[in-house]
Amino acid sequence: MINGRKVIGIIGGMGPMATADLFMKIIENTQAASDQEHLHVLIDNNTDIPDRTANILIGSDAPLKPMAEAARRLEAQGADLLIMPCNTAHYFYEPLCQHTHLPVLNMPEITAEYCAEKGLRCAALLATEGTIRSRIYDRFFAERGIRLLTPSPEGIKKLMHLIYDEVKAGKPAHPEVLWPELEALKNQGAEVFLLACTELPLVFHEDDPRFCFADPTRLLALAAIQAAGGTCKA
Amino acid sequence: MINGRKVIGIIGGMGPMATADLFMKIIENTQAASDQEHLHVLIDNNTDIPDRTANILIGSDAPLKPMAEAARRLEAQGADLLIMPCNTAHYFYEPLCQHTHLPVLNMPEITAEYCAEKGLRCAALLATEGTIRSRIYDRFFAERGIRLLTPSPEGIKKLMHLIYDEVKAGKPAHPEVLWPELEALKNQGAEVFLLACTELPLVFHEDDPRFCFADPTRLLALAAIQAAGGTCKA
Repeated sequence: MINGRKVIGIIGGMGPMATADLFMKIIENTQAASDQEHLHVLIDNNTDIPDRTANILIGSDAPLKPMAEAARRLEAQGADLLIMPCNTAHYFYEPLCQHTHLPVLNMPEITAEYCAEKGLRCAALLATEGTIRSRIYDRFFAERGIRLLTPSPEGIKKLMHLIYDEVKAGKPAHPEVLWPELEALKNQGAEVFLLACTELPLVFHEDDPRFCFADPTRLLALAAIQAAGGTCKA
Repeated sequence: MINGRKVIGIIGGMGPMATADLFMKIIENTQAASDQEHLHVLIDNNTDIPDRTANILIGSDAPLKPMAEAARRLEAQGADLLIMPCNTAHYFYEPLCQHTHLPVLNMPEITAEYCAEKGLRCAALLATEGTIRSRIYDRFFAERGIRLLTPSPEGIKKLMHLIYDEVKAGKPAHPEVLWPELEALKNQGAEVFLLACTELPLVFHEDDPRFCFADPTRLLALAAIQAAGGTCKA
């Protein structure tokens, strides 16, 4: 806590580009006229956290230990609240909370609340196989009476290729291969597409004229600014 | 040190957007095919460090104490080397080094070395009044026999407006007001323009067809990747 404002701690590295994207979105959305009016943010971009999807799919909790260690380091360094720019990592949200005294903002829950406030009734989940199969988003949408559609097996395969073989691999991305899948989900009633893997807002954008996207990374940034006592830009 | 690679610590917050820019340039320039192949980076985006230029111009070393505290926190957290995305803060480089056991990479020195390797004989310094008047860059260029031009008083005023009233204030930036100044410096022999305030690469770009810019933030990112044992993208 500095000057009445809380220090934001980011459990990062999941992935590194998504961590930079979240950090950038906190800065861009903070009402500030000078460096000193911005929020104090601590980032542990720990790239040694094992792949979340790969571990969830084999029933391993290997990512939890390094995530908890990062949480403890950030706490020791002065963080007052924690966020993590990885939807799939939220599979470990509850055990992670057991390892830290700090509040951890929950990105899927914040996203569901945003959709509820918008009065939406049906959303489509664009995410990793780990996030989709472990149903991380489902409870928060069910609680708010919002139907949650998931892509076809072929669509999930295309998403995984886009996320792992293109964005995370630092190669040119081809999000357009997903368009037929998005059209199909729209025809099934999807009013909004959740960019529920933090690599996806790097290639799909909320101002897209074709589809209505919601960016959980941006929603998490706004929630963190408010939780830290900052003011979001209008 | 993790898996034989060093942990990079960033003394950030000077300014926040420049910190995100440096972090992004480390990620973009690291040869990595997965999250786990990226480097471990710790960031202390401490926005409570007082303005560097304002303090240098009145002969105060107020920024040094919070910079040294950030260095100590990063060291305690596991950083093996330090960098800071603020040219003006390098005025405090030598006293800062007294406060930490870790090596601190020197952005102005790295930039001078880059110009020397390119065989350049004359560079123009685009920077804050604090960086220009305190001659932070001068020694490193003089040592390498490279002439260093500085903008006119009117040019410095325009740079300060662009940096403080536009970029740091989160307002639309108008770098084009500097073009006549850059033309004048080019006529005086400048072969390259150093974007020697970390807010400047946010508005001027190295691929500009009109002028040849060098971005010390990117050069610092490349040096940090190499110092940490990573591989820079070709």
